[in-house]
Amino acid sequence: MIGINEMFNPSSVAVVGASNSVGKVGYILVDNIVNGGYGGKVYPINPKSDEIQGIKAYKNVKDLPEVPELVVISIPSPFVNETLNDCGEFGVKNIVVITAGFKEVGGEGIKLEEEMISIIKKYNINLIGPNSLGTIDTHTPLNTSFSQAMPPKGNIAFVSQSGAMMVAIIDWSVTAGIGFSKVISLGNKAGSTEIELLEYLAEDKDTAVVIAYLESISEDENFVNTLRKVSAKKPVIILKSGSSAAGAEAASSHTGALAGSDLAFDTAFKQAGIFRVTTMDELFDVALAFSKCPIPTGRNLAIITNAGGGGVVSVDAMERFGLNLVEFDDKTTVKLKEAVPDEGSVKNPIDVLGDAPVSRYQETLGIVLDNEAVDSLIVMVCPTASADADGIADAIIDGAKDFDKPVIVVNMGGPTFINADKLLRENGIPTYVFPETAVKVVDYLARFEAVQERVYDDPIAEIKDVDTKTVSDIFAKVKTDGRDTLLGSEAYAVAKAYGISAAPIVLSTSNDEAGKIAEEIGFPVVLKIASDKILHKSDIGGVKVGISSKTEAEKVFDEIIASAKKAHPDIAPDGVEVQKMMDSGDEVLVGMVRDKQFGPMIAFGMGGIYVNLIEDVAFKLANGLTSDEIDEQFESTKVSTLLKGFRGEPAKDIKDVKEAIKRVAKLTLDFPEITELDINPIFVYENGSSALDIKIKL
Amino acid sequence: MIGINEMFNPSSVAVVGASNSVGKVGYILVDNIVNGGYGGKVYPINPKSDEIQGIKAYKNVKDLPEVPELVVISIPSPFVNETLNDCGEFGVKNIVVITAGFKEVGGEGIKLEEEMISIIKKYNINLIGPNSLGTIDTHTPLNTSFSQAMPPKGNIAFVSQSGAMMVAIIDWSVTAGIGFSKVISLGNKAGSTEIELLEYLAEDKDTAVVIAYLESISEDENFVNTLRKVSAKKPVIILKSGSSAAGAEAASSHTGALAGSDLAFDTAFKQAGIFRVTTMDELFDVALAFSKCPIPTGRNLAIITNAGGGGVVSVDAMERFGLNLVEFDDKTTVKLKEAVPDEGSVKNPIDVLGDAPVSRYQETLGIVLDNEAVDSLIVMVCPTASADADGIADAIIDGAKDFDKPVIVVNMGGPTFINADKLLRENGIPTYVFPETAVKVVDYLARFEAVQERVYDDPIAEIKDVDTKTVSDIFAKVKTDGRDTLLGSEAYAVAKAYGISAAPIVLSTSNDEAGKIAEEIGFPVVLKIASDKILHKSDIGGVKVGISSKTEAEKVFDEIIASAKKAHPDIAPDGVEVQKMMDSGDEVLVGMVRDKQFGPMIAFGMGGIYVNLIEDVAFKLANGLTSDEIDEQFESTKVSTLLKGFRGEPAKDIKDVKEAIKRVAKLTLDFPEITELDINPIFVYENGSSALDIKIKL
Repeated sequence: MIGINEMFNPSSVAVVGASNSVGKVGYILVDNIVNGGYGGKVYPINPKSDEIQGIKAYKNVKDLPEVPELVVISIPSPFVNETLNDCGEFGVKNIVVITAGFKEVGGEGIKLEEEMISIIKKYNINLIGPNSLGTIDTHTPLNTSFSQAMPPKGNIAFVSQSGAMMVAIIDWSVTAGIGFSKVISLGNKAGSTEIELLEYLAEDKDTAVVIAYLESISEDENFVNTLRKVSAKKPVIILKSGSSAAGAEAASSHTGALAGSDLAFDTAFKQAGIFRVTTMDELFDVALAFSKCPIPTGRNLAIITNAGGGGVVSVDAMERFGLNLVEFDDKTTVKLKEAVPDEGSVKNPIDVLGDAPVSRYQETLGIVLDNEAVDSLIVMVCPTASADADGIADAIIDGAKDFDKPVIVVNMGGPTFINADKLLRENGIPTYVFPETAVKVVDYLARFEAVQERVYDDPIAEIKDVDTKTVSDIFAKVKTDGRDTLLGSEAYAVAKAYGISAAPIVLSTSNDEAGKIAEEIGFPVVLKIASDKILHKSDIGGVKVGISSKTEAEKVFDEIIASAKKAHPDIAPDGVEVQKMMDSGDEVLVGMVRDKQFGPMIAFGMGGIYVNLIEDVAFKLANGLTSDEIDEQFESTKVSTLLKGFRGEPAKDIKDVKEAIKRVAKLTLDFPEITELDINPIFVYENGSSALDIKIKL
Repeated sequence: MIGINEMFNPSSVAVVGASNSVGKVGYILVDNIVNGGYGGKVYPINPKSDEIQGIKAYKNVKDLPEVPELVVISIPSPFVNETLNDCGEFGVKNIVVITAGFKEVGGEGIKLEEEMISIIKKYNINLIGPNSLGTIDTHTPLNTSFSQAMPPKGNIAFVSQSGAMMVAIIDWSVTAGIGFSKVISLGNKAGSTEIELLEYLAEDKDTAVVIAYLESISEDENFVNTLRKVSAKKPVIILKSGSSAAGAEAASSHTGALAGSDLAFDTAFKQAGIFRVTTMDELFDVALAFSKCPIPTGRNLAIITNAGGGGVVSVDAMERFGLNLVEFDDKTTVKLKEAVPDEGSVKNPIDVLGDAPVSRYQETLGIVLDNEAVDSLIVMVCPTASADADGIADAIIDGAKDFDKPVIVVNMGGPTFINADKLLRENGIPTYVFPETAVKVVDYLARFEAVQERVYDDPIAEIKDVDTKTVSDIFAKVKTDGRDTLLGSEAYAVAKAYGISAAPIVLSTSNDEAGKIAEEIGFPVVLKIASDKILHKSDIGGVKVGISSKTEAEKVFDEIIASAKKAHPDIAPDGVEVQKMMDSGDEVLVGMVRDKQFGPMIAFGMGGIYVNLIEDVAFKLANGLTSDEIDEQFESTKVSTLLKGFRGEPAKDIKDVKEAIKRVAKLTLDFPEITELDINPIFVYENGSSALDIKIKL
């Protein structure tokens, strides 16, 4: 993405397909660039005209007197790649392709887009599109889109995968009082992806907050780590739609069935420090707050209102969002008592009463913002007969400017506040109609502060005592055998090689061997038929528990083989597995389901036969997994309460459980051929733990 | 509430406290009534003036030439009750008290309000307030409030417990394009409660939808049954705030700990067929839809859009709300193919493309609405260069009027749609900016249809085979003993008297008796120390299981008594309980926690020692409980999946479980002295069930 800045702030722009016919895209593009205030050189390209809209035109990019820093292409799709080649040869580095008719139409379009990708790779070109509506930079200013309205200037960058949504939002931004730095229509993402653009916008000086409407995320196992660098600098808010399209995929493992297809996105966004919203109004409510407000230093909120009802509604919302209502100290309370009449309330939410004049708002605001315990302030104004909407707005603007704290205004009404809303927003104060919205955005502001505070360590990289050779060898053997599932004994060996505590399982192929192995691992043992083809092992007499002597083990070996042969004469079992019988403990599960997009997703939760009923499971992506995230994953389950010692039980070995999570993450990162992994149950004891049943699928 | 209609449409209104001083409440009231277009007689009452604002004034209500159908009072609080007495004696039936300074200020105000209540009871007066902002009827028209703005006329009735919120909403309604039939400020609810007013509004011909902002609900065990009559006629949408104030109360029973204080409201609203919303914008979004749209006959939705992105976002929202995307039949598809170009989509959501002219919207709309499978339609318009916002609006109005189906428009933008939004709303079509809002309101419309379809039977009333005498006697004995908790044997007897299947428990007071009882109920048995004072019975050797003979029972009796005496020398046990040992089954719990406001709330869910960890419990209020609601309660738990036969297990006796729910409901309705009840676990078998542990607290 070298030189991508020239995409938005080029010294010269060529428009391929520039036109003199009013209403045609090629006309609108030149018109928007020239009349949108762009100060650089504009080169219309049109093989049939010498002049476009009064500007000298050229027949081909290659004829230009200089290499344009940006080329915008809007010619029929069959001719686009030829132009791209010309651009590449001429040394052009930044291109926006407006033309549609590529991947999105299927058939020939897919081929054209593949060809396009190879051209831009060859010449190392930054390309937005094809099928893009174009880009807008309000600061340059440069409008390479065929949206005729230029959105208001501001500090929000908006990346949209839908052109129509982009147009809608530009129109709506006027009503919403929202200003943009850049608006980018992604189109088909043949060149620049949303991830690359987000990386760029993180560095963009004109942008304070990045928002995006996305229907897909480019496949990238490193997504979490890349986006963390973005969210460390700026708030990123994404409306990712299309969540319903795929639905939960059918999967053979517990873990797979528990994880829906949309869960991976949620998980990735959370770990990356990105905010995912589910509705468009939430996207813009939150963007407005980030575009105006400083970031608070915590979750303590104060409210000033001239209506008790508004306070009550806000407190409800605060409880839903987990924000704290500041309790004022005596000093502040004394001051507030001087400012607020007795019938009001100096307890948070502060009720300055329906008859509050501007001065009462002003004094209260100063006292509250001056209190160190207050991280954010919401000021609410109901249009009572005495409320001077504009005067209160002025007082808020004036009072807020001395403090580096978010002040958010709720102007509860319509016509009364048209001017006040404008005034406040122009002076860096976001306004909303309803108290719940204000509380919600404070939650986002505070959550961003928490993202900034995150520590990204790498506990998985610290694990060194693993034996990759053993695992590779086992996987090679499984593949040679033409199987896709490991035998219990193999899975045990893999776990052991990666330091995951498990009850020993060894495969025996004769009654004599079974006896010997049983003696080695220690009684009592379980014997189980070994075969990836026999599914319901217990039902056919393929499992015997509580075997307590060598002789018994030898005898049971023969019985199990006989039962299996009787039930499945056509299946040759691999032998009989001998497993040490463990004392029972609290049951947990650790699993992995591999996401196509983001790689291994690690599950932790309550184990046992009812996992799919209880659904007490939390997921994290292995890529970038931190110690804090493992703690959070653990704590977010109900079984964590059990392990910490429920109803007087002693606490269990939580450290060992977390170790298992880490090691499963490492194993599945090291071996991408593992498609599914389920350890259920793991018995957790006061000291240590033991995996009972390990299923690994390649 | 006889004659309450005169509260809103009186032939004459007297204003006590009427004033000539501009700006005073008594001035504004007269001004609002006279200049708000009211056509009836107006009588200002003021002891010091003969004329108020040019109208003949009277010194006292009693001096009036006729009994006014409505009296509005705004005089200092110490004088209000005297006036009320005068009104009562004179025969006034409807009064609005604007004056504040009653219950809400505490102290003397509480006394004044108590006195007020006795006066209105004495004279059978309908009274709104005190501390009300007044009422507005836009149809009469009559504005008895001191809000100077008259809201737009419409068919939404709005009841508000906060005066300031009422003012805010009146102001906002202009921007939101919402019209009201009546706006009522409840004040302190000394007379008319929100429940009575909702009952009245159900019959009001000018009102199509009732919305309310409430901070409390008047205590009424019959709430569910009363409000069902309202919701059978009109949609009722309530924003009930103050949910966080109380928090979950500490309770000694499982059931109590599982039920938060706010849960009772949620449960009551659901059972009453009322919609509870959590935010103010949701309240008004939904009200707008109900005020404009017919009620759909199902949950099948079609979408027409000129932007793919809007369709995707809508489908996501539909999945969240559980609405169905109609799959069109061949006939419709053929017609759509003629109307929509190939690059568009004739599959739902129908993409008419960004260049769609008015005619394409028009044709598509007709085809889709004509399809019988379509219950509701959302039409989305993005402001593309070709989109003719006003023309499309006209086409929608024209096309929708021939069909009795909800048509909801999403105009995704700002300035482009100002006129179109107005046009559509004036012609009975609600409009929203974002697709998710449109989908949400369709969900509400369809849910109201489901409310209309409900069958309210009374399965509890059908239970006749109960022995109330036995229960009364046991409770009397418990009270005489000075206890508040029943012994296990007593609780068993209560369960038996109410036909709840339970493992027999009988109290023995000697080793000889223990042996005899054990023999009678059949071995094996459990012996347990009987005492409401000994809490951890197992820990002190107070419980012995698996007793299989008479001799053993006699011996264990002595051992248990000895252990108990050793551990608690100060406690005299009531004896030893002998309980039949039952085979284990699937564990469920049935419980009851009594809500102060709504009466018994019945819990059903997964049983066992981890109930508070698993939290798989659903609640229903016993008052008005129907068979469908019991089914729903059962189905909403995870344990229902288990009982239906999980992972190949045979199905359990679900009928017996539901019988237990009904009978616990009946028991706790019949005996209000039961404060808490917990049956956990109940073992559920393939045939029948058996309650193991029953705790009843009075």
